Amino acid sequence: MARRLFSILVLTLLTGVLAPVAGPLAAADPAAAPEPLLGFTAESAAAQRELEASLDAMVSTDNLRSWMERLAARPHHVGSPWGKANAEYMAGLFRSWGYETRIEEFQVLFPTPTVRVVEMLAHARHGVSVAGKIVIARYGAAWRGIKPKVAAEHGAIGCLIYTDPEDDGYFHGDVYPKGGHRPPHGVQRGSVSDIALFSGDPLTPGVGATADAPRLTKEESGKLTKIPVLPLSWADAQPLLEALGGPLAPEAWRGGLPITYHLGPGPATVRLKLEFDWSLAPAYDVIAVLPGAERPDQWVLRGNHHDAWVNGATDPVSGMVALLEEARVVAELAKAGHRPKRTIVYAAWDAEEPGLLGSVEWAEQHADELREKAVAYVNTDSFGRGFLGAGGSHTLERLVNQVARSVPEPKTDLTVAERAHKAVEVFGNADRFERAGDPPALRLFAMGSGSDYTPFLQHLGVASLDLGFGGEDDYGQYHSIYDSIDHYVRFMDPDFAYGAAMAKTAGRVVLRLANADLLPFEFGALAAEVGIYVEELETLAREEREETEKTNRLLDEEAYQAAADPMKIYVPPERKDLVPHLNLAPLKNAHARLAEAAAAYAEALGGLAEGAWPAAATLAEVDRILYRSERALTRSEGLPERSWYRHHLYAPGFYTGYGVKTIPGVREAIEHRDWAQAEEQAVIAAGLLEALAGEIDRAAELLGPARP
Amino acid sequence: MARRLFSILVLTLLTGVLAPVAGPLAAADPAAAPEPLLGFTAESAAAQRELEASLDAMVSTDNLRSWMERLAARPHHVGSPWGKANAEYMAGLFRSWGYETRIEEFQVLFPTPTVRVVEMLAHARHGVSVAGKIVIARYGAAWRGIKPKVAAEHGAIGCLIYTDPEDDGYFHGDVYPKGGHRPPHGVQRGSVSDIALFSGDPLTPGVGATADAPRLTKEESGKLTKIPVLPLSWADAQPLLEALGGPLAPEAWRGGLPITYHLGPGPATVRLKLEFDWSLAPAYDVIAVLPGAERPDQWVLRGNHHDAWVNGATDPVSGMVALLEEARVVAELAKAGHRPKRTIVYAAWDAEEPGLLGSVEWAEQHADELREKAVAYVNTDSFGRGFLGAGGSHTLERLVNQVARSVPEPKTDLTVAERAHKAVEVFGNADRFERAGDPPALRLFAMGSGSDYTPFLQHLGVASLDLGFGGEDDYGQYHSIYDSIDHYVRFMDPDFAYGAAMAKTAGRVVLRLANADLLPFEFGALAAEVGIYVEELETLAREEREETEKTNRLLDEEAYQAAADPMKIYVPPERKDLVPHLNLAPLKNAHARLAEAAAAYAEALGGLAEGAWPAAATLAEVDRILYRSERALTRSEGLPERSWYRHHLYAPGFYTGYGVKTIPGVREAIEHRDWAQAEEQAVIAAGLLEALAGEIDRAAELLGPARP
Repeated sequence: MARRLFSILVLTLLTGVLAPVAGPLAAADPAAAPEPLLGFTAESAAAQRELEASLDAMVSTDNLRSWMERLAARPHHVGSPWGKANAEYMAGLFRSWGYETRIEEFQVLFPTPTVRVVEMLAHARHGVSVAGKIVIARYGAAWRGIKPKVAAEHGAIGCLIYTDPEDDGYFHGDVYPKGGHRPPHGVQRGSVSDIALFSGDPLTPGVGATADAPRLTKEESGKLTKIPVLPLSWADAQPLLEALGGPLAPEAWRGGLPITYHLGPGPATVRLKLEFDWSLAPAYDVIAVLPGAERPDQWVLRGNHHDAWVNGATDPVSGMVALLEEARVVAELAKAGHRPKRTIVYAAWDAEEPGLLGSVEWAEQHADELREKAVAYVNTDSFGRGFLGAGGSHTLERLVNQVARSVPEPKTDLTVAERAHKAVEVFGNADRFERAGDPPALRLFAMGSGSDYTPFLQHLGVASLDLGFGGEDDYGQYHSIYDSIDHYVRFMDPDFAYGAAMAKTAGRVVLRLANADLLPFEFGALAAEVGIYVEELETLAREEREETEKTNRLLDEEAYQAAADPMKIYVPPERKDLVPHLNLAPLKNAHARLAEAAAAYAEALGGLAEGAWPAAATLAEVDRILYRSERALTRSEGLPERSWYRHHLYAPGFYTGYGVKTIPGVREAIEHRDWAQAEEQAVIAAGLLEALAGEIDRAAELLGPARP
Repeated sequence: MARRLFSILVLTLLTGVLAPVAGPLAAADPAAAPEPLLGFTAESAAAQRELEASLDAMVSTDNLRSWMERLAARPHHVGSPWGKANAEYMAGLFRSWGYETRIEEFQVLFPTPTVRVVEMLAHARHGVSVAGKIVIARYGAAWRGIKPKVAAEHGAIGCLIYTDPEDDGYFHGDVYPKGGHRPPHGVQRGSVSDIALFSGDPLTPGVGATADAPRLTKEESGKLTKIPVLPLSWADAQPLLEALGGPLAPEAWRGGLPITYHLGPGPATVRLKLEFDWSLAPAYDVIAVLPGAERPDQWVLRGNHHDAWVNGATDPVSGMVALLEEARVVAELAKAGHRPKRTIVYAAWDAEEPGLLGSVEWAEQHADELREKAVAYVNTDSFGRGFLGAGGSHTLERLVNQVARSVPEPKTDLTVAERAHKAVEVFGNADRFERAGDPPALRLFAMGSGSDYTPFLQHLGVASLDLGFGGEDDYGQYHSIYDSIDHYVRFMDPDFAYGAAMAKTAGRVVLRLANADLLPFEFGALAAEVGIYVEELETLAREEREETEKTNRLLDEEAYQAAADPMKIYVPPERKDLVPHLNLAPLKNAHARLAEAAAAYAEALGGLAEGAWPAAATLAEVDRILYRSERALTRSEGLPERSWYRHHLYAPGFYTGYGVKTIPGVREAIEHRDWAQAEEQAVIAAGLLEALAGEIDRAAELLGPARP
């Protein structure tokens, strides 16, 4: 408490010297008038800028450091004593700052290993036939949980997953403790449940995992891995890999170990013995509410998880402490008279690591209220130092860009937007990371899964963001015992400068969402994205068609056998049915319609800048259209074979895990060669986009010259 | 001798069962009439096909094996007793087959190391300034000799070169003795003289290194490496690499060792002590001549080197024994009444390994006669099993393709052309390896350096070819003590089937060149190549211009510093002068002119197929134009700063070594940003192409309907 009060005092004193701190930022374009703030009248914008200057001045890296020292002091996975203590500690902080704070408890399945044995037996039995095999897979490419899923689909009876040094070990730089990269015995823990099916507690899909919730059995869940799985360090994996005796592994599969990578089977026999405690564990979500002064029923949600696999200084504490500092300052500002218009809800989620359990159960538990009231969800998780990275709903892209253009970059004279742009210019990949314009905009990446935005975005249809800094840290501690404070302060963000920058960045996003006269949504980027996705779908179908034709032709010509090494076993690809031309016209028409509506809305916004703003009732009506725009992209029937995922623009891939699939119903149908489903899903997605366009038109009309 | 006579006996018996051997080939297109043979009347073509069927039947893999057992039994580098014994043994073989055989001896500089010490001293002195540094470089990317050249240009005082396991070691497959890839202690020997300057003996540029030739001193040569150089195995290099303490090496520079690759400098001190015996060594070229029956002053040259770094079963004996077998059969056929029209010269070159010394000195010694008489030079060197690869003068591309379409592939039912095409279809890269057509043609690769074709092609302007098989062998023994017979018969060409296929392939090329009524040259492929090269030059200049503009713009914007990691040292690129638009119009016009002439010649050839052939005197006149066509691409002034290289279409790169630069005068001027020289060289190259086009026109006229 003393430290916190001290900080406030210092910050109050500092406010007077704010100008020099913000100086370099203004220096970037000294002659220009400040950019109009999306969703703010000129008058409100001026007030908001002042508020944000105070935010910048009040953020203290000392707080970040001291909270990390507390939260990451001991292992704090879900169900652990330190996890519970952390939840209570943070709840105490929130309460002390004036938030209406509660801890919501859920009972979630968290299987804990009690026996872990993997042994390579002598190279005794060659070619002995067994009912199945234990596979060893390398981390990477797809999400880890996909590996045992596919292995089990192919009849394997066990799965080992190892971390190759090419991925985050010595190949990338010196290993811990000399550098920050993964040392020989670093093991990547992690969930391997089938998150593509549904997220959250395996036993309570769709409903909150309260103590008395109806529960599936483990067998009924469908989400639990079908075979035992164990992660290994490369030091433990190397002898197993060396024992593999099949053909040479394809070049892309080989890694950085000093061995020849072979496929299996090998002459070695492996014994894998795993036992688990299948008890439920309590998950403690800390929920802190600051009711809005004018529109309390519009909720701006902001979250980060607090559970870790071990000590988790980076994952999740780096993000958690930035959220805490942001929340502290927001509360202080409210106390100083800057109470937000809308309600702000801060959340520290438990049990993210085993599958987003804390956030999903909470979102499911409060689904009806959230569908009604949630304006947006802003997520952070672990991060380090470097460049701003942002993903999420493209309706929020312009907001994020305006924010990024106003946050001072910690280590240069630039804003975080400017530095990210310079990096794109120098390192390339502008197509992927930027949207053309003047200035060019940071292009939000479409989100699959991997952190707590998933239940909000993909299950409830709440516009969501995920923010981070990175690219210059040495991130080799991921999900291991090496994710420590020592590692963080040596290799991630030594002076907590990027943690502070995150408090300023996410804090601005939250405060603008909370204070705007009109919610800062916009549809140009969304329409542009849909156009890109539809083109990608066409390319995907065309390439699949050409590839199929080529494969079949080469089979006809017996070219594969002819080109294959006669001294090696070779299995040519299978003949496939030809790919028909698909009717994607509904999507193209819907895209055109959406682009038109987005332009009309942009024009209406332009009108606001010049003229008088509509009455409060009209703004409230438009607000409601805006924040329900993301819901318009969802459908209660969900995606084929996984109804929990309701969003038809963004979803984690069925066979990628974290990796996003855009327009997933259509894209995955093409990938799985289900042409009828691809066309059905195109009609469904097109229908959602057309309906959304109608809503946007209505919003534009309400704001436009013809408005009452 | 008994073995050889035995082989002839067996082959005589086998002639009767030839048809089944050739069966699968005919089966590939049973209905089609045989393809007209380029340069042959219908009648001559039929005789030639019969001759080639005999060739195929007479080739014995037993001979290949037994000669390899003899030649590769002991180390036989230039100057060694076994090298001399091999030369005498092969001369004996050639004589016994009826060749006019001689050994031509040259005295060449072959520095032999007498002391080789490399020691890493204790990590005692940090940051001690020394006059220069010892650099350690990884084999690969550019030719090995470029590394000490560039190192010395930058002030280094010594150079170590090591073989990374990513390049031909465990990354690619099991290492010797389990597999064929390079084991931990495998060292790649090799010349590091500056071959880009001139080829051959360092002390006698431009003249044959006879005992009494005028000689430069070592200091005057300019071709010897300026600093001491030693090759290392990765096992010996790893401790040195681990001791480097500079920034992380760029990703493309890192290899397959289980270490973090850093740039230097390192805290370690290295002691490098090398001493050499700088005596001259005798090089023994074996020259075997079969005088032509009708046009003895037109010489078809065919060569392979016989010296090795150690035992050299693959390099060069695999190619040498195929040449011997081919020469044996050609001689037997001549004795049986099929004496070639033109003279055939077989050569077994010595001293190729230290810089093509044997072939270059011989070519320089006989330069005038060769310029007058040499029709073409056909080279082989080490090869293995797999797919036909062919490089060389594009005037011979059609000949090579016709040959490849008639040689049975050893392990399939296809011809070697068909299998190479299937591989391109399956593995891709058709643009690089094929020329569109029906059937698609194998595209000859343009040749830089690396084997004995260089003096003929690039110094004398003799149309040249280099032929090999590969792609399925385990080639990890290159230039090491592991290049043994055991390695060859386990990992290269176990049953010598591809050695036999080479005797049939190169044998056909030689016999067609020797027996054709009109030399089998053609200009369509050449014109196509020139078109490709000119486009590449335009692209190169444009990309250089865009890259320069971008670099300068990013420097103006201070983007490099902004994007650089503030915790690491970063040196931004230097500002460069803008790239002007270059006048490449002379080359484009010359290309158009050449394409027209090539079409006219193709039409004239088409006329021959239908009508009567011209008189012998006319054919002789056209022949002379044809085989001097390659001379037309050379100029006695040579290329800028390296007059020994006279070819203006193909040259080894000044900073690539073996790697080819096409239209090198222009291309390297652009790469070195000498815009005036680029335009001058464009005019020169264009002039040569225009003159060649005039000669082709004359040949077409001589053959055409208007001929006397």
